[in-house]
Amino acid sequence: MQHPGMSDSITREEGVKHIAAIIKDIKFALLTTTNAEGHLHARPMTTQQTEFDGDLWFIGSKDSGTAADIRKNAQVNASYADTGKNTYLSLAGKAELVEDRAKLEELWSDAYKAYFEGGIDDPNVQLIKINAEGAEFWESGKTRNLLQMAAAAVTGKTSHDHGTNETVKL
Amino acid sequence: MQHPGMSDSITREEGVKHIAAIIKDIKFALLTTTNAEGHLHARPMTTQQTEFDGDLWFIGSKDSGTAADIRKNAQVNASYADTGKNTYLSLAGKAELVEDRAKLEELWSDAYKAYFEGGIDDPNVQLIKINAEGAEFWESGKTRNLLQMAAAAVTGKTSHDHGTNETVKL
Repeated sequence: MQHPGMSDSITREEGVKHIAAIIKDIKFALLTTTNAEGHLHARPMTTQQTEFDGDLWFIGSKDSGTAADIRKNAQVNASYADTGKNTYLSLAGKAELVEDRAKLEELWSDAYKAYFEGGIDDPNVQLIKINAEGAEFWESGKTRNLLQMAAAAVTGKTSHDHGTNETVKL
Repeated sequence: MQHPGMSDSITREEGVKHIAAIIKDIKFALLTTTNAEGHLHARPMTTQQTEFDGDLWFIGSKDSGTAADIRKNAQVNASYADTGKNTYLSLAGKAELVEDRAKLEELWSDAYKAYFEGGIDDPNVQLIKINAEGAEFWESGKTRNLLQMAAAAVTGKTSHDHGTNETVKL
């Protein structure tokens, strides 16, 4: 339930900044995809090394269930739990399997060598990009919408209509 | 990736016991549902007070997004993260909105009063039951299937065919 003292009227830019601050200290996201049979699967994925700017990036495997699921259904959820602080972030968006050597080099760290024998040149390395469309954050039992799903598609309003009852709730 | 030293050949009963032991110490699950527009939404939900026996139970609100989503699409994912231990559990299953006063009394605790003005008699209280169909557990970078999706539907094999390459991976 929405805490009365909190306002949803933040810009996308402010929301993105909040999200960047939250996820940078959380080592793994839970990335949930829908498989061909319609089942929902969550898998821990290493949080990107670079600052979040509205797109989430993960390094996965081309032969993983996650990649197979995304090829069939791009809608995904990335969630971040900090069980010590008891905070939770849910981020909904559209995933893309991307080939981008420059981006891969930016995101790569030696930790991925544990997963890829051939290192950064391993042919199984797959960049996953998620365009964040909506995000909700829970802290001390309060919910806050950090990114609002663009309301345009549903109500004919633009995504600037934050904080009204007509915006699309996550 | 599957750790070579770990076997998938555990019975459903053993898997259920493992899951019960994992989730009892994790206060909140992240429950992911699919909404009418196909977006995936995760929301923290209080872990049940009783021991897991193959069905997960949550107490939610009839007017919540979670309940609305389940009415349209029963496939859900419940994930449990322990960021201190760095362990993750993903559980896929089918959700049902259930009216069962005896079960509600068994699961209810005073903590829910923060969410429901009318307490256990609040007309907005909604029991959610999730039949666990598959579960995967990550610990120290190793993956373990604790419950196998019944393979019958896909390969013609029964769910007793654990541990082969033909079983359905989560």
